[in-house]
Amino acid sequence: MALGEFELIRRFFHRAGSGNGDDCAALQPSPGQQWLVSTDMLVEGRHFLSTVDPHALGHKALAVNLSDLAACGAAPRAFFLAVALPQADADWLAAFSRGLFALADAHGIVLAGGDTTRGPLNLCITVMGESPAPLWRRGARVGDDLWVSGTLGDARLALEAFRGTLQLEREAFQACRTRMERPTPRIALGQALRGVASSCIDVSDGLLGDLRHVLEASGVGAVLKLDALPRSPWLAAQDPTMQHRCLLTGGDDYELLFTAAPGAALPDLGLPLSRIGRIVEAPGLFLRDAQGHPVAFDGRGFDHFNTP
Amino acid sequence: MALGEFELIRRFFHRAGSGNGDDCAALQPSPGQQWLVSTDMLVEGRHFLSTVDPHALGHKALAVNLSDLAACGAAPRAFFLAVALPQADADWLAAFSRGLFALADAHGIVLAGGDTTRGPLNLCITVMGESPAPLWRRGARVGDDLWVSGTLGDARLALEAFRGTLQLEREAFQACRTRMERPTPRIALGQALRGVASSCIDVSDGLLGDLRHVLEASGVGAVLKLDALPRSPWLAAQDPTMQHRCLLTGGDDYELLFTAAPGAALPDLGLPLSRIGRIVEAPGLFLRDAQGHPVAFDGRGFDHFNTP
Repeated sequence: MALGEFELIRRFFHRAGSGNGDDCAALQPSPGQQWLVSTDMLVEGRHFLSTVDPHALGHKALAVNLSDLAACGAAPRAFFLAVALPQADADWLAAFSRGLFALADAHGIVLAGGDTTRGPLNLCITVMGESPAPLWRRGARVGDDLWVSGTLGDARLALEAFRGTLQLEREAFQACRTRMERPTPRIALGQALRGVASSCIDVSDGLLGDLRHVLEASGVGAVLKLDALPRSPWLAAQDPTMQHRCLLTGGDDYELLFTAAPGAALPDLGLPLSRIGRIVEAPGLFLRDAQGHPVAFDGRGFDHFNTP
Repeated sequence: MALGEFELIRRFFHRAGSGNGDDCAALQPSPGQQWLVSTDMLVEGRHFLSTVDPHALGHKALAVNLSDLAACGAAPRAFFLAVALPQADADWLAAFSRGLFALADAHGIVLAGGDTTRGPLNLCITVMGESPAPLWRRGARVGDDLWVSGTLGDARLALEAFRGTLQLEREAFQACRTRMERPTPRIALGQALRGVASSCIDVSDGLLGDLRHVLEASGVGAVLKLDALPRSPWLAAQDPTMQHRCLLTGGDDYELLFTAAPGAALPDLGLPLSRIGRIVEAPGLFLRDAQGHPVAFDGRGFDHFNTP
């Protein structure tokens, strides 16, 4: 079915309280707040499969952006959606927008503006949030503990199952697939870490890659305890090689990785927080096994770090 | 040549004063200002040809976004670039980023953040500006004069020449091609119209289509004088049908279309301003020829207006 751009916007994306349909959206910042802004582009075949449930895609496209706000400890305020579509499929758009707005509503944010065009499927979302004191990657200090929320690696485990490299029981597959397709941005945790965490990042590219960003930005190193990495029962049931691959290099977790001074009063939000290592002066990333022995890891995302 | 995402960002898009490489960019609004935000997505084959000069594309991708800020009378502050690339071609990227930053520098704005990924060529830019008193589409009042800046239709004339439906002399082709490929966002005019114009929009989809947005948002109608529409010598040399097609429905002009009370003191910025009609109470858009007689026009973008 063929829908014009304006008709399409009106039917699926126009809601009371959303953008005014003008050239720009106007946003009035709250007193004493900084704006935090992030943008992410999702491409079919790279970030999601053509067969993805559009409701889940609507959720995920916004979730990965909200996760960036969470990493900065920001309160979400508004988002902008630019979308290229190969065709205007009303059923697909209806499901996509329901998934999108369900998550937007859960965080009380409005779709303030956007753009739609015809083209290979591409979703670009820009989110805006605010905070009086943003968290950054660059604040990790020698002696800080290294923490991560939730569990790591389930999204990657689902991907491996989709690829056919392993098989999962039905319950395990559903749980891991939900982690991959409907990630939960840790918005409440990010805000609760203001004034508590010394640095913060969301785990989107994989633990090693994202930790590397923190270490480089902060000019420090880290010792990481392999056995302390939090994992689900289904990941814990895999062989050690698969466990380590998913834990260390699996993307799409969207947990928060943060540092805090020893003894810092961490927020209790019902979300498990695991102490997975500590920040050291020597540059690099040092993996340790349960006995404290050095471990070498040659996985992707780990290419130019020292493992003595 | 294959470049990684982070290497690509560093080589072509990282500059002093640009984003901090963190999950979000932080922007501190000036006191008393509102943020104006707009996002536009450009897709290969739809908004530009695969053969486009990448320097011109870098310019245009930012220019069309800045034009939205101009329409709101905003001062540009920052922009975000999300880009999907089929391959990382260093020569192409170098030229694209030069075109992009030349225009950014001309307006003193920074690339505050963004995203790069592999995929069919797609450019999504989000611009942020600020204004103490934004201009909107909805403020046109009965009795206001209708104005437009510069000239209309040259970008469409270039497109017709590219399509082979007409031929242009070399000088004319170059001039029109520049209008199409390197549009000038009317940033200074937009800011000078604060407190002067009652409504404003940029002409991106074609005069009739964009004027329709103003009329609908304001709940008014307009009488438009065909002979008053400003045109270049090369467009004036075309037959009347082609002139009207380019003037009324040609997109990509990026001039400002605005309304102002009769006798309003308009800014003198060396950019011609033409009075092309007036706002009336009767809903609809009424075209008049040089003698004031009604004219019917059945061109694209004009489908559901009355022409008595």
